[in-house]
Amino acid sequence: MKPVGVLDIGGSKILAGLLSPAGHVLGTRRAPIADRRPRCVAGQAADLLRDLLGARRSALRGVGCSIPGPLDRKTGRVLLSPNLEWRNVPFGCLLSEALHLPVAMDDDARCAAIGEWWRGAGRQARCLLYIVVGTGVGGGLVIDGRPVYGADDAAGEIGHTIVAPSGPRCSCGQRGCLEAVASGPAIERAAWAATTPGRAPFTVTGAGAKLLRITAEQVVKAARRGDPTTGRILDRAGAYLGRAIANAVTLLNPDRVILGGSVARAAAWLWLPRLRQSVRELSLATAASTVRIGLGSLGETAGLVGACWTFMRMEDNGASRMG
Amino acid sequence: MKPVGVLDIGGSKILAGLLSPAGHVLGTRRAPIADRRPRCVAGQAADLLRDLLGARRSALRGVGCSIPGPLDRKTGRVLLSPNLEWRNVPFGCLLSEALHLPVAMDDDARCAAIGEWWRGAGRQARCLLYIVVGTGVGGGLVIDGRPVYGADDAAGEIGHTIVAPSGPRCSCGQRGCLEAVASGPAIERAAWAATTPGRAPFTVTGAGAKLLRITAEQVVKAARRGDPTTGRILDRAGAYLGRAIANAVTLLNPDRVILGGSVARAAAWLWLPRLRQSVRELSLATAASTVRIGLGSLGETAGLVGACWTFMRMEDNGASRMG
Repeated sequence: MKPVGVLDIGGSKILAGLLSPAGHVLGTRRAPIADRRPRCVAGQAADLLRDLLGARRSALRGVGCSIPGPLDRKTGRVLLSPNLEWRNVPFGCLLSEALHLPVAMDDDARCAAIGEWWRGAGRQARCLLYIVVGTGVGGGLVIDGRPVYGADDAAGEIGHTIVAPSGPRCSCGQRGCLEAVASGPAIERAAWAATTPGRAPFTVTGAGAKLLRITAEQVVKAARRGDPTTGRILDRAGAYLGRAIANAVTLLNPDRVILGGSVARAAAWLWLPRLRQSVRELSLATAASTVRIGLGSLGETAGLVGACWTFMRMEDNGASRMG
Repeated sequence: MKPVGVLDIGGSKILAGLLSPAGHVLGTRRAPIADRRPRCVAGQAADLLRDLLGARRSALRGVGCSIPGPLDRKTGRVLLSPNLEWRNVPFGCLLSEALHLPVAMDDDARCAAIGEWWRGAGRQARCLLYIVVGTGVGGGLVIDGRPVYGADDAAGEIGHTIVAPSGPRCSCGQRGCLEAVASGPAIERAAWAATTPGRAPFTVTGAGAKLLRITAEQVVKAARRGDPTTGRILDRAGAYLGRAIANAVTLLNPDRVILGGSVARAAAWLWLPRLRQSVRELSLATAASTVRIGLGSLGETAGLVGACWTFMRMEDNGASRMG
């Protein structure tokens, strides 16, 4: 059976994969984005898929693509991508032209949610809330076997629910969004603010006396080593995440909450117990007693698996190539 | 075609109705609950339906029942109803026995949400959030043509999402739930707290010098007449409601938010502009620009219409009588 080509387009990298139509990963390849112009990204992605396919002497069934939203799923148009500096880009059409294949697209956090529900830690969940914490904070919902898209394909944006009304300004323009207090950059800013000029508040491996940047990874490592300042910073971010999750648990009564993303994976040792405690204390008892909270099991392939599902679903519905 | 018998069981009253299988109201009857014992309520409800049916010389197709949750929909068991003082009551079976008919049951707020989506102000909504503000604050969600039940039939409880972390204690045991700051009793408590002993902070029609109780209705009336204290109290409750709605709009990207319940209907003149402003200011822009916020169009029959849908849906699925 022909494999499905899948892509996860990030702000600076492309992850490409070949998956069986049942969602099993046959191979992946990763490359930094060489040129951000949409046609170049589409061409580079097509080349990565052709490379992967080369050894197999097979044709692709079609392509599923996970990309940072907001986007119009039906036309494959990326409405805005600050990291890629794209605005209103018909990326689905460009990909489809480059590969002469049908393309299905969805938001990256929703793809990862679908992937974990279909083949990962959320299998058989009746109501799954997925949250990715990395450079941003995103989310996706799968309820009763269907992804939740919302009225404009924008459902799932837990990162922009407000958890600290008088908190810091978020990139979206609001104040006190979860993303503004719990994303990687938010943690870095908090660590930087706790730093006397040029000196880290904790031992930064590899940094000299003159500190130019603190990464979330360094903060997590320092906290894990027992550094109290970074421990407090990370715990505070986890507490905000816990508030947002607790309210979503009360509102939606999910059986599974799954975390993904580089920051959540690194901070899981501290955050998972914290989040379980928040949900026990801040959610309605019925909902709190049911929900299980944990990390995803697919790691960075979750988005690829979800993109494969999205393509297979489009094929089932008889939709044809974008354009 | 045989009509569907529908019931909306409240804490102190029964509203019964006959509906066409398409959800049109043929007649309703209301009675205060004479005796709270479950078998007596089931008997009284059955009598009301028989009365309604009497003139029509028709048989009922079956019964749909809206009842305050939490409940187990599949078995028709009411897990806890503080107002009726019921715990773990197989009310669906009792009704089914009293009427010798199949019975479908669901939570009252979810029934009202379904009613407004099926035949009311939320027709054709892709993603509908319904919120009832009365003695309590409840909610229901209908997404892509399906009610959201959650893992334990407990989805929709927006009234117990926390909007004021250091706010007053809620009946559910948590602190700062929306219900604890925006329900009728919460508004009454706030008005009472602003009252010097025995004297209302505003002119209460019909109250003498010795004030024993302030009702939410009186608060709304005084605010509408321009009384500043009650105006502030009501506006504050509306601001909390706005926060909860804004976060739900960001998370779910609904096209419709519909309000129902006695307090929301009375306070709509003040609250609707307030809520629209909150959503503009506190929701992600894409979601905020789409959502329309308004009152339901079915009034107190929303729950009956939703109960009818719930029964018809059970019949379509081939489920038979509970018991």
